[in-house]
Amino acid sequence: MGPLIVSGDFEVLDANSAFYEAFSERDLAAMDVVWAKDAPVVCVHPGWDVLRGREAVMESWRAILNGPGSPEIGCSHAFAQLLGETALVVCREHVPGGELVATNVFVREGGAWKLVHHQASPLATESEEMPDEPLN
Amino acid sequence: MGPLIVSGDFEVLDANSAFYEAFSERDLAAMDVVWAKDAPVVCVHPGWDVLRGREAVMESWRAILNGPGSPEIGCSHAFAQLLGETALVVCREHVPGGELVATNVFVREGGAWKLVHHQASPLATESEEMPDEPLN
Repeated sequence: MGPLIVSGDFEVLDANSAFYEAFSERDLAAMDVVWAKDAPVVCVHPGWDVLRGREAVMESWRAILNGPGSPEIGCSHAFAQLLGETALVVCREHVPGGELVATNVFVREGGAWKLVHHQASPLATESEEMPDEPLN
Repeated sequence: MGPLIVSGDFEVLDANSAFYEAFSERDLAAMDVVWAKDAPVVCVHPGWDVLRGREAVMESWRAILNGPGSPEIGCSHAFAQLLGETALVVCREHVPGGELVATNVFVREGGAWKLVHHQASPLATESEEMPDEPLN
């Protein structure tokens, strides 16, 4: 393959933003558009086990976006790496309870970047003691 | 591109296993081989902020593998998806304190699968109350 990785400011960051806009606006239809239709999708919400497949993933978003506890969310520090026709975006998520780090993986589908994988995990808050060594 | 994704039992799972073997055997040299040399690498240890670049990532592994608190670790439920010349592996990690979910992203380098991204985040333990809605 050609240049393996180009980092920085790409169209894929728009796709990443669309994910967080759909989330923050509780827009399930927009969230549906964000996720890949052909490629298998995987989602790991904080503390949850792995959700595999479009049905399970979209069902989780339906519950989250329609739920009374759906958090305000923002995204910052998004950084994209192109890996051939796959793109890896790592970013910070801001919710009322603290900050998280997310990995979002996109593929090209129908000429657009579509989400195939999302994992978010909380950063230790300032009030928590930071371990000398991480669990992993 | 051709068939975008093939799921299942691939050579990339061996590369994933090599990562956990290096971890469990506290083998820093093996860990160094696991990670990509040319492609930019990213690592998100549980609760930690994003580590970018080979120097920061390997320094973290040096601290973890040489540290007195380096946990016993095992891996199960590894599942690979090929995304062109990138591969996405999602698996469970088993440590004494509980279980985690990990995302590991590999690229081809020198004819072998090399790790470019690792994020691990804890599953809620059975003693914790599972939230009705995830944080995200």
